[in-house]
Amino acid sequence: MVLEGDNPLKTKIPYILLTNGGGIDESERCRRLSKELSFEIKPTQYIQAHTILKTVVHKYTHTPVLVLGGLNDDIRKVAESYGFKHAYTTLDVKAWNPSVWPFYDLTPDERARAKPADFSTTPIQAVFVFHDPRNWALDVQVLCDIIQSGGIVGGPYKEPDVPVELIFCNPDLIWRSDFDRPRLGQGAFREAFQAVFRALTGRTYPYTQYGKPTAATYKFAEQVLRDRLTEIQGGPVSQMPQVYMIGDNPESDIAGANAAGWDSVLVQTGVYDPANGPPQHRPTHIVYDVEEAVRYAIDREIQRMSSWRRHDAPRLERSFSEK
Amino acid sequence: MVLEGDNPLKTKIPYILLTNGGGIDESERCRRLSKELSFEIKPTQYIQAHTILKTVVHKYTHTPVLVLGGLNDDIRKVAESYGFKHAYTTLDVKAWNPSVWPFYDLTPDERARAKPADFSTTPIQAVFVFHDPRNWALDVQVLCDIIQSGGIVGGPYKEPDVPVELIFCNPDLIWRSDFDRPRLGQGAFREAFQAVFRALTGRTYPYTQYGKPTAATYKFAEQVLRDRLTEIQGGPVSQMPQVYMIGDNPESDIAGANAAGWDSVLVQTGVYDPANGPPQHRPTHIVYDVEEAVRYAIDREIQRMSSWRRHDAPRLERSFSEK
Repeated sequence: MVLEGDNPLKTKIPYILLTNGGGIDESERCRRLSKELSFEIKPTQYIQAHTILKTVVHKYTHTPVLVLGGLNDDIRKVAESYGFKHAYTTLDVKAWNPSVWPFYDLTPDERARAKPADFSTTPIQAVFVFHDPRNWALDVQVLCDIIQSGGIVGGPYKEPDVPVELIFCNPDLIWRSDFDRPRLGQGAFREAFQAVFRALTGRTYPYTQYGKPTAATYKFAEQVLRDRLTEIQGGPVSQMPQVYMIGDNPESDIAGANAAGWDSVLVQTGVYDPANGPPQHRPTHIVYDVEEAVRYAIDREIQRMSSWRRHDAPRLERSFSEK
Repeated sequence: MVLEGDNPLKTKIPYILLTNGGGIDESERCRRLSKELSFEIKPTQYIQAHTILKTVVHKYTHTPVLVLGGLNDDIRKVAESYGFKHAYTTLDVKAWNPSVWPFYDLTPDERARAKPADFSTTPIQAVFVFHDPRNWALDVQVLCDIIQSGGIVGGPYKEPDVPVELIFCNPDLIWRSDFDRPRLGQGAFREAFQAVFRALTGRTYPYTQYGKPTAATYKFAEQVLRDRLTEIQGGPVSQMPQVYMIGDNPESDIAGANAAGWDSVLVQTGVYDPANGPPQHRPTHIVYDVEEAVRYAIDREIQRMSSWRRHDAPRLERSFSEK
C-alpha cells in the first residue's frame, strides 16, 4: 500500500521483485504469489533468474536451442512463452535416442510430453540453464555432446565457426530450503559440468552468468524499473531516480546492489543473522524487516528532497529479493 | 577349451575375466555370461570393478555404509551379498526425507524397494561407488552431506575423528556403448563430485581409486589367480607363475598389466585400432584376437620352459578384459 501511493509523497513508487528462483513463467508465478499475498503483483514487476533470457530471444527466435532445468517440459514452455520457437530439453533428446544416456529411464509422463525431433539433423546453437537441472548426468552428457560437436548430439567432434553459446541464470552454489543444511544450487551444477568438460577436453568452456549478484541482472532490473516508471508517469523518464535494493542476502542482494550503484537495505528476517557478525558486503542501512526498509527509504528520500529543494521527480524505487 | 587343458602342456591354465563393469553380483553375471557363451564361467573367475570391495567387508560388516550406482536397489543387494550388513543407497536416504534433494521424485518402484532407516541417527562410515551413479545430483548432495558432517545426513558440519572413507571402483572417464560417441563413466562422476566438494569446502576429498588400471586391482586379480591355481593344483602355490593380460584397451588393460609386472597382449578387436598409430602403452605383443593371444602366450611359455629345462610348474595364467 505504501508503495502504491499511501505514503507522504502521495505518489506511486515503482517496485519490482528480483529473485534467483524460477522454473515456471512469470504470469503463473505472479498468479500464485498474488493469491498468496491477496495483493496483485504484475508479471512485469517480477524478475526471476531466467527472465533476463528474454533479451536474447531475438538472436535465437527460429534457431534450435537447448533449455535446462525444471520439471518435465515446464522450462520448454517457459522458453516458448518468451519467444524461443525451437526450444528443446534433454528429455526430448533422451526420447529421441535412449542410448544418449543409458543410465536413466524416462518416466511415462516425461515420455508423453517429449517433443519429437531428430537431433542428428538439429544443430543446437545455444544452451540456456534456466533453472536447477534435475538430471545432472543426462544434462552434463548432452551439454558436452553439443559443445564438442558444435551442436549435433552424437555428431563428430569439431571446432565450429560459431561456438555454442552457454548461459547460466543463477550462480548460487547453495540455497536455503526447508532442509536443515543448505542444498546444492545451479552453481554446483555449473561446477560439475565444467569439471567434466575440463577432464574431457583440458579446458573450461566459456559461458555467461546471469542472476544476482551479476551486473547484467542488475542492469536488466534497472531497465525494467525504468519501463515501470515510464508507465506510471505516462511518459519517458528523463533522469533515473535513486534505486533501493531491499534484501536478506549480503553476498547476493547487497553485493549486487552496491556494485550497481544502488542503495541497499539489509533485512534480518532471512539469510542474514546479525549474531554471526557484520555482513561481508556492507549495505547502506540495516533494518529489521521489509516494511521498515521501505519506510527508511522513503524518509531518506524526503529528507534529501527537502534539503535539495527538488520536488519535481520521484527519486525512489524499490527492488525486493526473495528466492 | 585351450585353457581347460586342451593344449600342448596338457594342463589346466587358470584364467580370470577382469572388467571395469559391474552393477549386479558375480553369480548373476556369470549365469548370464555362461548362458551366452554356452561355456561355464565361475563367479570366482570373474572380477568386476566392485569385486575388490570384498576385501574391505571385514572393516564395515556391521557398520552403516552408503553404496552408490546401479539401478534401484541392485547395488544394495550386491553389497549385502558381499557381507555388508548395513548398506544403504541414496534412494533410501531420499525415501527417509524427501527434502534431502528436492529436485527428484522417487519412482513407485524405488519407493517400494527403499530400505527404511532414520539417517539422522545412522552414522555412515564409508561410501563405496560400486557402479556408475544414475542420479548424480542426489548422489553428490548426499555424499557432500555425509562427508561434511562425519556421517549424518543433515547433521552439523564438523571434522570427525575418523573421516568417512570414500572408494571409487572404476576410474574410466568415458566408455564405449552402442552410441556413436563415448559416454561419460564413473570417472566423470568423480570429477563432478570433487568439483562441487571443492567449491563448498576449498579442498579435494581424499579417496581410494580401484579398477583397471590401478595397482590395487591388479594385485587383487593376482591373488584371485593364485587362489584359482591353488584349487587346480590341490595345494599351495610355491612360486607364482608368469601372468598374461589379454586386453583391447592400452590405457587400461595394458598400462595396468605393465605396471603390475605381467606380460600384456593387445588385441585389435575392441578399443585399440592400429590405424591410429602405435598404442600409448606398449604391450609385450600385439595380435588380432583373444584366441591368437592365448596361443601366443602358451607357445612363449613352452619355449621358455624348454630353454630353461624347467618343467615343474605351470608358468602361465591369463587375465582377460571386457567391459
